[in-house]
Amino acid sequence: MTEPTATAHVRKRLVPCRECSESDLSQRARWAGGETLATSLMAKALANPDLVSLAAGFIDQDTLPVEPTRRAMEAIWSNPVRARAALQYGTTIGHLPLRKILMERLLAADGQTARRMNVSTDQIVVTAGSNELLYLVSDTILDPGDIVLCAAPSYFVFLGTLANLGVRAVGVEADEQGIVPEAVEEELERRRAARELHRVKAIYVISYYDNPSSVTVPAERRAALVDIAKRYSNGNRIRVIEDTAYRELRYWGEDVPSIRSFDPEGNTVVMAGSFSKSFSPGVRVGWGVLPPDLVEPVLSQKGNIDFGSPNFSQYLVWTLLEQSLFDDHVATVREGYRRKIAATLEAADEFLAPIDGVEWIHPTGGLYVWLRLPESVDTGLSGPLFDRAVREGVLYVPGVYCYPTESPRVPKNMIRLSFGVPCRDDIRRGIEALARAIHQVL
Amino acid sequence: MTEPTATAHVRKRLVPCRECSESDLSQRARWAGGETLATSLMAKALANPDLVSLAAGFIDQDTLPVEPTRRAMEAIWSNPVRARAALQYGTTIGHLPLRKILMERLLAADGQTARRMNVSTDQIVVTAGSNELLYLVSDTILDPGDIVLCAAPSYFVFLGTLANLGVRAVGVEADEQGIVPEAVEEELERRRAARELHRVKAIYVISYYDNPSSVTVPAERRAALVDIAKRYSNGNRIRVIEDTAYRELRYWGEDVPSIRSFDPEGNTVVMAGSFSKSFSPGVRVGWGVLPPDLVEPVLSQKGNIDFGSPNFSQYLVWTLLEQSLFDDHVATVREGYRRKIAATLEAADEFLAPIDGVEWIHPTGGLYVWLRLPESVDTGLSGPLFDRAVREGVLYVPGVYCYPTESPRVPKNMIRLSFGVPCRDDIRRGIEALARAIHQVL
Repeated sequence: MTEPTATAHVRKRLVPCRECSESDLSQRARWAGGETLATSLMAKALANPDLVSLAAGFIDQDTLPVEPTRRAMEAIWSNPVRARAALQYGTTIGHLPLRKILMERLLAADGQTARRMNVSTDQIVVTAGSNELLYLVSDTILDPGDIVLCAAPSYFVFLGTLANLGVRAVGVEADEQGIVPEAVEEELERRRAARELHRVKAIYVISYYDNPSSVTVPAERRAALVDIAKRYSNGNRIRVIEDTAYRELRYWGEDVPSIRSFDPEGNTVVMAGSFSKSFSPGVRVGWGVLPPDLVEPVLSQKGNIDFGSPNFSQYLVWTLLEQSLFDDHVATVREGYRRKIAATLEAADEFLAPIDGVEWIHPTGGLYVWLRLPESVDTGLSGPLFDRAVREGVLYVPGVYCYPTESPRVPKNMIRLSFGVPCRDDIRRGIEALARAIHQVL
Repeated sequence: MTEPTATAHVRKRLVPCRECSESDLSQRARWAGGETLATSLMAKALANPDLVSLAAGFIDQDTLPVEPTRRAMEAIWSNPVRARAALQYGTTIGHLPLRKILMERLLAADGQTARRMNVSTDQIVVTAGSNELLYLVSDTILDPGDIVLCAAPSYFVFLGTLANLGVRAVGVEADEQGIVPEAVEEELERRRAARELHRVKAIYVISYYDNPSSVTVPAERRAALVDIAKRYSNGNRIRVIEDTAYRELRYWGEDVPSIRSFDPEGNTVVMAGSFSKSFSPGVRVGWGVLPPDLVEPVLSQKGNIDFGSPNFSQYLVWTLLEQSLFDDHVATVREGYRRKIAATLEAADEFLAPIDGVEWIHPTGGLYVWLRLPESVDTGLSGPLFDRAVREGVLYVPGVYCYPTESPRVPKNMIRLSFGVPCRDDIRRGIEALARAIHQVL
């Protein structure tokens, strides 16, 4: 692999490539670039089968919901009308009873009424995971050269989507409470001064148990973000894209109302949700709550791509929710992950805390621990730590991949650890291996 | 509805709209345009519940495969390892054992070996219906302003996808054997003379039981299309996009080897397939056979959109194929549609044949009858026939929607009839109603 830094890597993909202007590929395909981080990491994992992977954001194999799914499917087969409908085409927006339950659950979680939140089922779209919703919205509101402000660090798959669209991902300072509203405002002022404010179309925020930083944005910052987006929407509208993929994975502490609940008109916030982390990624059902003016254009794009999400999966999730099979399962899932994160933090205290300059944010939910190493340690794929870690038996995601292309600074000493897949013994073994590798490079 | 002609309607969407340059939407979203044909027709259907819909390309409610699906799901649940794997993330390219069966079935259908066809599972991608494959390939090889040659008439949903991408759909003459190779070559020569040959990136062909014209392209034309695409690929490559969505729905006559089988290197033909018509659109599993150089770019785009198709649906289809549940079901489906198409043709003979100037191609498979009315009859949504037909109790797809934006001529007197959904009595009732409406306008 030739890969000096991730920023160079990502930036390369944003510049229209002159050498390949003779390419058979579209401009978008060229922006999308070649080998992804996931592919490189998977190759490492395949070549070293004993490796403990603290890299993949996959979920716990043992908590996969075989029994609840089997029961929901049985309920579907027991009703011939429902069974046939599940196998027929649906509508592009998604199955209405499912969208109704999604809305009711959102209102209950946020302690709101539909009227106060100005939300209706017409704004709720079912998608192939939250990922498709993020793609559809991006494709609908972003042109090449447009700007999306993202916390630095941010979800690297979404950064790849933005690169694919030729969109500039601009990093904004984040701390232990997530993206800093004052930093967002400063960035917007900088863009105004550079006469680029009209190119800023969105602020992307993972509002619960961020991937990778694990932080949750507190209520006052949520309100501030909506306020800023509204104030700086002059001529063009700045949307807040709220990614709630991890909201259900809360292990300690209280839930916070969604950013959407701080946008009572519903014109500013686009909300994306998912059952992939809380239930099953194999079912791939996600959803979005859209500002009214985006519903038709997003559905138009979705119609072109997949003509609506599989009815079969939608009926499954609807039945799971209707019969409380989902809620019962999520309680089990939470309990399982709570034990795993405890094992992760315990091992970190034992093996990593003694190393000077190693620190981390204590997560209260989600699937990640965001680790800072001493500044001298380059955690990148071609740095000294990565191969030593693999030799010692552990795989991680180098932090540089999680920084937007245009970030104020990209620390090279960060690591994302995921505790979703490995068992508690393996987590401990993996963190011990990581500590050994760090000792070697110090 | 203000809609003079479908071509104007579609063309409108291809021209970047100056008035809405201040829009909050991306250029692509603006190209995608507003209300779709499907939406308009669905509104008519909802407002007239007694209407016989000969419009929707949906499939027969009674033949939806409840029992085979239930049995396949039981087989999945009976194997805990398989059950858990079905609920976990898969790979972006799709489940390998499924791709292997898809390849074996293709080779068997075409009477070929993998070596002679130069095909491997690495080129086979599982998608959300064939629709997603068509979108992904288009997004990967087409830039705004590029040209795709399509039979006139062609599949109107794909024409919408091309409009969405800002791509020019150029219509080429088709007859009772589908797209005319000599007309393709003439069109390419015209593009060469206009110095636009480098913008021609693909020829789109529905090779079996075309939607809407019901024709199947014979072997010699298949070979000729591949030959033309290769000969005119200078600098830029011209692909043949072969849509085989209806291949399994053969009621009479012999199967023909795929266009892909006439491209032994596999660099020219992109093949799209689907289980939506032959099994269940609710499951939404399709696939593609890609030229080797398109695999990585297409997967890169797919990774951004949905991160891989639902594993759950893929395991289901894999099990259905593995246990011959699919083949048994398809035999039933064929038998059901054979009876319906017989009813359609019988009613057409009785009610439509007596009307001077009404004629149709006798389909041997698929879901459509493509009807020509006397030239004086405008079948469009705002023409005199459509509302009369609705009043008499039948809904159809006006033929103008099936013509590419830039077509040599767009006859206004064509109709697409689908016999997939209604029962035989309703088909007869619908065609009788259509005949009454035609008599009224003559």
